[in-house]
Amino acid sequence: MPEPVVLVLDADPSPRLGRLTGRARVLRTGAAELAARLPDADVLLVWDFTSDAVREAWPGDGPRPRWVHAASAGVDRLLCPELAASDTVLTNARGVFERPVAEYVAGLVLAFAKDLPTTLALQREHRWHHREGQQVAGSRAVVVGAGPIGREITRLLHGLGVQVALVGRTARRTIHGIEDLGPLAARADWVISAVPLTPSTYGMFDTRFFGVLQPSARFINVGRGASVVEADLVEALNRRWLAGAALDVFRQEPLGEESPLWDVPGLLVSPHLSGDTAGWRDRLGEQFVTMYELWADGSPLPNVVDKERGYVPSTDNSEDLEGT
Amino acid sequence: MPEPVVLVLDADPSPRLGRLTGRARVLRTGAAELAARLPDADVLLVWDFTSDAVREAWPGDGPRPRWVHAASAGVDRLLCPELAASDTVLTNARGVFERPVAEYVAGLVLAFAKDLPTTLALQREHRWHHREGQQVAGSRAVVVGAGPIGREITRLLHGLGVQVALVGRTARRTIHGIEDLGPLAARADWVISAVPLTPSTYGMFDTRFFGVLQPSARFINVGRGASVVEADLVEALNRRWLAGAALDVFRQEPLGEESPLWDVPGLLVSPHLSGDTAGWRDRLGEQFVTMYELWADGSPLPNVVDKERGYVPSTDNSEDLEGT
Repeated sequence: MPEPVVLVLDADPSPRLGRLTGRARVLRTGAAELAARLPDADVLLVWDFTSDAVREAWPGDGPRPRWVHAASAGVDRLLCPELAASDTVLTNARGVFERPVAEYVAGLVLAFAKDLPTTLALQREHRWHHREGQQVAGSRAVVVGAGPIGREITRLLHGLGVQVALVGRTARRTIHGIEDLGPLAARADWVISAVPLTPSTYGMFDTRFFGVLQPSARFINVGRGASVVEADLVEALNRRWLAGAALDVFRQEPLGEESPLWDVPGLLVSPHLSGDTAGWRDRLGEQFVTMYELWADGSPLPNVVDKERGYVPSTDNSEDLEGT
Repeated sequence: MPEPVVLVLDADPSPRLGRLTGRARVLRTGAAELAARLPDADVLLVWDFTSDAVREAWPGDGPRPRWVHAASAGVDRLLCPELAASDTVLTNARGVFERPVAEYVAGLVLAFAKDLPTTLALQREHRWHHREGQQVAGSRAVVVGAGPIGREITRLLHGLGVQVALVGRTARRTIHGIEDLGPLAARADWVISAVPLTPSTYGMFDTRFFGVLQPSARFINVGRGASVVEADLVEALNRRWLAGAALDVFRQEPLGEESPLWDVPGLLVSPHLSGDTAGWRDRLGEQFVTMYELWADGSPLPNVVDKERGYVPSTDNSEDLEGT
């Protein structure tokens, strides 16, 4: 029996797929040859998660991979109607990014509360200027996006004594429905977005949303850039509708040198790194190999994306969510 | 019966002592008149905790306040041998600073792990440069100083998934003795000092100490500046014996504009603000008023400093210290 073909969409650094030797033929491809090679692949590993090539190359009715795995949490870059309509299984990297992203958000919350950016700026000027920080314990957060990343952010902030409300698409158990977002955001110190990019989250953080925030609030986006109307956020910051914001994700990445976002007062810009801690590429590679072994043995795969919704639905009763 | 005289050493902003009206005569003094006024005071409130005036003004054998309260955690600036030998009760502001300082330390740990200072520097240059952060969960910390601040730091870092060892003067229950510091520091990612300034902590963080650290370690001081030999820390950073450090306290405060410390690569300088969150002065004032009411009623005071040791000894069995 021939070994299944695992096609890896991967411009440069390679995942550690050595464990597949003898179980699969691993072939690499760039974006340009992807369309030509897809029909011969049993599995597509989208290692270059910054690429839009899959949407463009996906074969309509012809032969196609039976399984596509995205080495990322979000699948918006590769999920096209033809892939959604097909019987190809789509999985994501759920499990790898939750803790790093949650720590990153906790770090931003504390950095804002303790005014660390100002401390660093004053240090450059050799200025000793005492200021009062804020206490994080007892402050209020709204986490938007009740997937595994949003849940982990909720847990970690809760552990810091923050009163956290978690908002999902629909209300269930300890999770608020999206209809509660406005009232919750209106009294929050921190609004954190960890939403996937879907038609209903596209542009959801806009002038109307920022208009309800407290002037002392901060907005943090570690979900997807296109959920934020960036011009609206800039205007809201300029009008002092909120005290600050941090964006780790953007409509267009990488952010160009000429982007006005770099210089907006109160806006902290980081290069889509919140989930990436030392060893993350190895963890992504190991996760794929483990999933491949399940697939090759005919066992059910974890992390299967609901292709209509655009994300992996949470199974509520498997979650141990401390009070929100 | 005449009202007791509460003398407040306070250059400028006044604590909210209105609740003492009718129970005490509240008089204010600057450093210059302190010696002349101390003999007439029943209580001395050292509100200006940056002042060295008490050591200089303390009356030897003459009349003196029966109670001195420091609106600070440390009492090293005012504790002199004559005060130590007297029967005057000395108390501190235990309870006000623990949580803010612990949050500040957690913020520094996360900022270092996520390389936030570099992110801010790159943003100024409009440079999108992805880097990998570190995961805080699973890293190792040593917290030196087993008083209430060190214990709160331990609790908060433990909640972030850090493996924390707490080091005190002597080993007891979940606390390591000072003899374990070297071996623990040698494998720590984070060494955090929350020690009071006493003869045995003066200059304890020196070349010999920094020499045992891992090159990836960071040192954070939120205790007292003089526990660190600053020149030794600078040399250790220059030699890359450790990856970074943050000092919130210094031998001389405020740090002068000409200090070389401002420009040491890897050193984060902040102006003694870790414990000071919005409303802290009010909390200090309220704490004093509450303690005054106990004192005036002849009830025992909390937060009594052991004047030989130089700090408030912890009562171990009152502490709920989660695993270290």
